[in-house]
Amino acid sequence: MKNIKIINKKSIGIFDSGIGGLTVVKEIMNLLPNENIVYLGDTARVPYGTKSKETIIKYSLENTKFLLNHNVKMIVVACNSASSYSIEPLKKILKKIPVIGVIEPGAKTVCEKTKTNIIGVIGTTATIKSNSYKKTILKYSKSKKVKIYSVACPLFVPLIEEGWMDKIYQEKYYQKLRLKRVDYENYYNRIINHEKILKYVASEYLSVLKQKNIDSLVLGCTHYPAIKKVLQDVVGKKVVLIDSAKETAKKVYEILKLKNWLNDSFKSGSIEYYVTDYPDKFKLVGSWLLQKNIKNVKKISL
Amino acid sequence: MKNIKIINKKSIGIFDSGIGGLTVVKEIMNLLPNENIVYLGDTARVPYGTKSKETIIKYSLENTKFLLNHNVKMIVVACNSASSYSIEPLKKILKKIPVIGVIEPGAKTVCEKTKTNIIGVIGTTATIKSNSYKKTILKYSKSKKVKIYSVACPLFVPLIEEGWMDKIYQEKYYQKLRLKRVDYENYYNRIINHEKILKYVASEYLSVLKQKNIDSLVLGCTHYPAIKKVLQDVVGKKVVLIDSAKETAKKVYEILKLKNWLNDSFKSGSIEYYVTDYPDKFKLVGSWLLQKNIKNVKKISL
Repeated sequence: MKNIKIINKKSIGIFDSGIGGLTVVKEIMNLLPNENIVYLGDTARVPYGTKSKETIIKYSLENTKFLLNHNVKMIVVACNSASSYSIEPLKKILKKIPVIGVIEPGAKTVCEKTKTNIIGVIGTTATIKSNSYKKTILKYSKSKKVKIYSVACPLFVPLIEEGWMDKIYQEKYYQKLRLKRVDYENYYNRIINHEKILKYVASEYLSVLKQKNIDSLVLGCTHYPAIKKVLQDVVGKKVVLIDSAKETAKKVYEILKLKNWLNDSFKSGSIEYYVTDYPDKFKLVGSWLLQKNIKNVKKISL
Repeated sequence: MKNIKIINKKSIGIFDSGIGGLTVVKEIMNLLPNENIVYLGDTARVPYGTKSKETIIKYSLENTKFLLNHNVKMIVVACNSASSYSIEPLKKILKKIPVIGVIEPGAKTVCEKTKTNIIGVIGTTATIKSNSYKKTILKYSKSKKVKIYSVACPLFVPLIEEGWMDKIYQEKYYQKLRLKRVDYENYYNRIINHEKILKYVASEYLSVLKQKNIDSLVLGCTHYPAIKKVLQDVVGKKVVLIDSAKETAKKVYEILKLKNWLNDSFKSGSIEYYVTDYPDKFKLVGSWLLQKNIKNVKKISL
């Protein structure tokens, strides 16, 4: 019994190749506010998507080893490329410590939610090329006639990392800057322009999916929750958006509950951030994605 | 005398961290169609901009060594980050073989062309942060009151690498695809949309420079010649655009002429392409930038 209590107090370990995984952190914090979190962003070696399977597995093992040294009770692979290749090798090594990725939760949910079995998937070029979502959706689909249309949207990540996201994400950030009224009006006009440009780009990428009459759309990149409103506007209200970050958080809750490992503390959980390269960009863009100021980021070597 | 003739037949060696340097190749081919060229794109280690000075110098030396093994009479560093740090170390090693970068030619030309001494510079975040153009312009400026306004435009490179460039660049490419009329009309609409989006992004970045009343604008990134028309539309016709690629080509001509090393062959020059990572993207985006099909690309290790 004592042992279980100690496990409960342990942290959830989360890694990503960079910043995107923070949208998963955001959802876990919302759903499980008492859990402690250790986040590792492997910013020195980002992006993983263009690297070989062997290299991605090697990096994932190194990241996991680091997290294990920080007293974690679970590993969340909050990176699409690492989720494609590393879950099975990690399971073999971790044994008693559960590990989940971001692809299975999203793929499973879309199979439950779709009614017409015409599904859209968007992600980075590397994720779409890997066919990971397609394969996983085919594994869980109840219909043999399921149709999956995938579109790579390589401009979304640079747009988000430039801060050109959903207006509401930008607004919260600028409000925090406590700008003078005149500055704020200037910024506000820019926010409107940024969202408008994002909308044009999204319309360009998603026009093919609209023609195919998809009824659900998987956001296959951890950055995309920051542009969910614009994506919904572009595809129309009838299309169900599947947010992998949200689905992954739900899965974390399920697993911890089943094992009776949920943190029973009344205090808010703590969070530690580690990165492998200069933390400046991580702090800035991370604060946007997390909608929370990121202060203490430690640079480490793996 | 025999020796000089042999030198004349040698190639011009050009390297970049990736694809962008091909705009320099394009200008050299226009100006010096009889010269042979050996191009090396270090695509496995791109981008250089986020790496340390020491690492960039190390990579530049490795690239130069590779080119020297391919019988070159001159080295062109067609990469902004490498030009910032590597020219002096390379000069020390190369001795008799001339070496030039892309920063000095652009910076010198803008000092000659500006009348009001209010100069704008645009580039990637890394180039702008390095202050390389600012320092070099201050070195060559005839006026002590020169004002230099720099703006980082991190979305331009992803846009260009997605093919969302000046309409004329996109058109030539799609014409080559020999599409059917109906396909071509579909593509043409997309081309118009892409250019429109590019224009919105450019307006957003350049609004600050317009407010400062610049009379000349340095395109401080080798990718930017592919969006020159849109940039000119946005800043207005009165602003002189300084195209570093073009200025670098002129400098190559001057140096070879002065040394009497110009290739006196009547044949068109040959070109060899080498890259350090998968050549697919290099071939596609390179063909856009060069406005010429790139076929034989060899993958090498350094």
